[in-house]
Amino acid sequence: MGTQRILSGMRPTGKLHLGHFTGALESWVEQQNQLDETGARVYETCFLIADYHNLTTSLDTSEIYANTLDMLLDWLAAGVDPEKSPLFRQSQVKEHAELFLIFSMLITSSRLERNPTLKEQIRDLNMESLVYGHLGYPVLQAADILLYKGNVVPVGEDQIPHVEITREVARKFNNHFPHPLLGEVFAEPEPKITKFSRLVGLDGKAKMSKSLGNTILLSDGPEEVLKKMRTAVTDTQKIRKNDPGHPEVCTVFSYHKKFTPEEQLCSIESDCRAGSLGCVDCKKLCAANIAQELAPLIEKRRYYEAHMELVKEILLDGEARAKVIAGQTMQEVRAAMRLGETTCSNHL
Amino acid sequence: MGTQRILSGMRPTGKLHLGHFTGALESWVEQQNQLDETGARVYETCFLIADYHNLTTSLDTSEIYANTLDMLLDWLAAGVDPEKSPLFRQSQVKEHAELFLIFSMLITSSRLERNPTLKEQIRDLNMESLVYGHLGYPVLQAADILLYKGNVVPVGEDQIPHVEITREVARKFNNHFPHPLLGEVFAEPEPKITKFSRLVGLDGKAKMSKSLGNTILLSDGPEEVLKKMRTAVTDTQKIRKNDPGHPEVCTVFSYHKKFTPEEQLCSIESDCRAGSLGCVDCKKLCAANIAQELAPLIEKRRYYEAHMELVKEILLDGEARAKVIAGQTMQEVRAAMRLGETTCSNHL
Repeated sequence: MGTQRILSGMRPTGKLHLGHFTGALESWVEQQNQLDETGARVYETCFLIADYHNLTTSLDTSEIYANTLDMLLDWLAAGVDPEKSPLFRQSQVKEHAELFLIFSMLITSSRLERNPTLKEQIRDLNMESLVYGHLGYPVLQAADILLYKGNVVPVGEDQIPHVEITREVARKFNNHFPHPLLGEVFAEPEPKITKFSRLVGLDGKAKMSKSLGNTILLSDGPEEVLKKMRTAVTDTQKIRKNDPGHPEVCTVFSYHKKFTPEEQLCSIESDCRAGSLGCVDCKKLCAANIAQELAPLIEKRRYYEAHMELVKEILLDGEARAKVIAGQTMQEVRAAMRLGETTCSNHL
Repeated sequence: MGTQRILSGMRPTGKLHLGHFTGALESWVEQQNQLDETGARVYETCFLIADYHNLTTSLDTSEIYANTLDMLLDWLAAGVDPEKSPLFRQSQVKEHAELFLIFSMLITSSRLERNPTLKEQIRDLNMESLVYGHLGYPVLQAADILLYKGNVVPVGEDQIPHVEITREVARKFNNHFPHPLLGEVFAEPEPKITKFSRLVGLDGKAKMSKSLGNTILLSDGPEEVLKKMRTAVTDTQKIRKNDPGHPEVCTVFSYHKKFTPEEQLCSIESDCRAGSLGCVDCKKLCAANIAQELAPLIEKRRYYEAHMELVKEILLDGEARAKVIAGQTMQEVRAAMRLGETTCSNHL
């Protein structure tokens, strides 16, 4: 069966919010720390700062380093362990670009145009014209995953089609370029269905998003959390404090379900329905529970903020380790493709 | 005015033919050796073996190294001087792929789809579907040129639109990513209209091409040249030796115009028209003149064939020199884009 390796990544958009936590970070840490019955790690985990991917939707890189560090602080705060998981920037490991270029020869434009996520983005971002590199987003993603021989890709059920492009590219490479010793250079990665809880935004919109300004940050202290919680959209039919409410349509209740202990949750739900719990108090409870969840993260963040040189060392160390793996893979790729040979039976 | 640098390249398709010579190599050597009134070189020349570009139309890389060496032998035979011009493989300088990935963010797919050469290729190669990397051919070309800060691009008149994509990409990069010290990282390269003589194929088709099997190789000896010349298509109305011919429609005469001395050319033309020169003799004359032109190349080729270790050293040396230039450019690119920084005022 061999080692199971997971490559996951995020674009460096700055400070992370609760949506990043429940949607990804929480699972990352779980996968990182999961042990089998012998006490060995189930997965090797590598976490990527996808700075090249950032360029597909914005060419403004003025804050990219500050945003990278802010995101890194949140990763570390949330329990990502740089000893276990190398953390590195895509742009600092040249092999990402090399494998992207090679993979770009293994897939057609029309296959990429049929990518449903791309269609969604074009609609959401209201893009007039598609940037060539944006069309190649899944090709770069395939390079990211396969460069580290990621063989497990944690995805939500709706994202299985994404993994398919990586699998196709791996298959095509293996078919065209058998390795003289290894046979196949790449294993086709398997999608691992993972339950990600998506958090709605404070404004009730489908998701928390920095650009919508409807987020609670992982670095927000208790006062900030409460202040933001006060703006949260609730059941619009519950106008007065004592009106009976409908938790199933309430943004705040969706947060309770994630951050409030089970026993408290039941009474909140029934009190809301009965009209005995007003939104102001309900929000206070919710904010307190979120703040409690965030407290250890904030403490850990504060430690790293006071030791920024350490954070940079973590990044450089992760990049050095990533380069070793990436370099090995590219050596295999080159041998399979016979690119860059310097001996040749025809001529010697 | 600064240094004028020319980056030119060819795909490693194996032994070169006369069409490569008159269409490119001859000009390369001329540009390489051109001196100004002070005796200084007018151009710095870099010559690229475009092995990645090869993948756009064929994934068969089994012969790529043998073909690379064969092409290199012909370059050297034709007078390319590895001391003056670094010779190197695209795939051995990772920065080509890096700059390709960055440039892929600076141009839209639809702009690339409008590329007339691409449309031509799709038609000629009868391609059902376009490979993503093939669509990006001019993006990789822009990376090739700008990585070495090529500021002069020798082109035939019909190819000026190609240079335009490189110019657009350079402009867009400079606009979005001003360098803190240099201002603009890239100069927009200027097209330099160059008269390339295209040779028709032995079969009368518009050009010599390996795949059409209608070529005379630079490495063909006198007997081989004569043997191939015998197959050349001539004026189809000149059936018997003494029929008057029409040199303007004759393949062989088109070679005479390129390889036969002026004074001999006039008598050949008039004797053909008068019916006093038969095709067999005319072909012998032509083959002899081509063989004479090729004799010094063959001698030089033979020397290098006997010293293949030297040829490989030339390649490795060229690659080492190319990496230095490419590395400098990428340092500037990264500084301008603020990618990979490790200091940040916000956090220190």
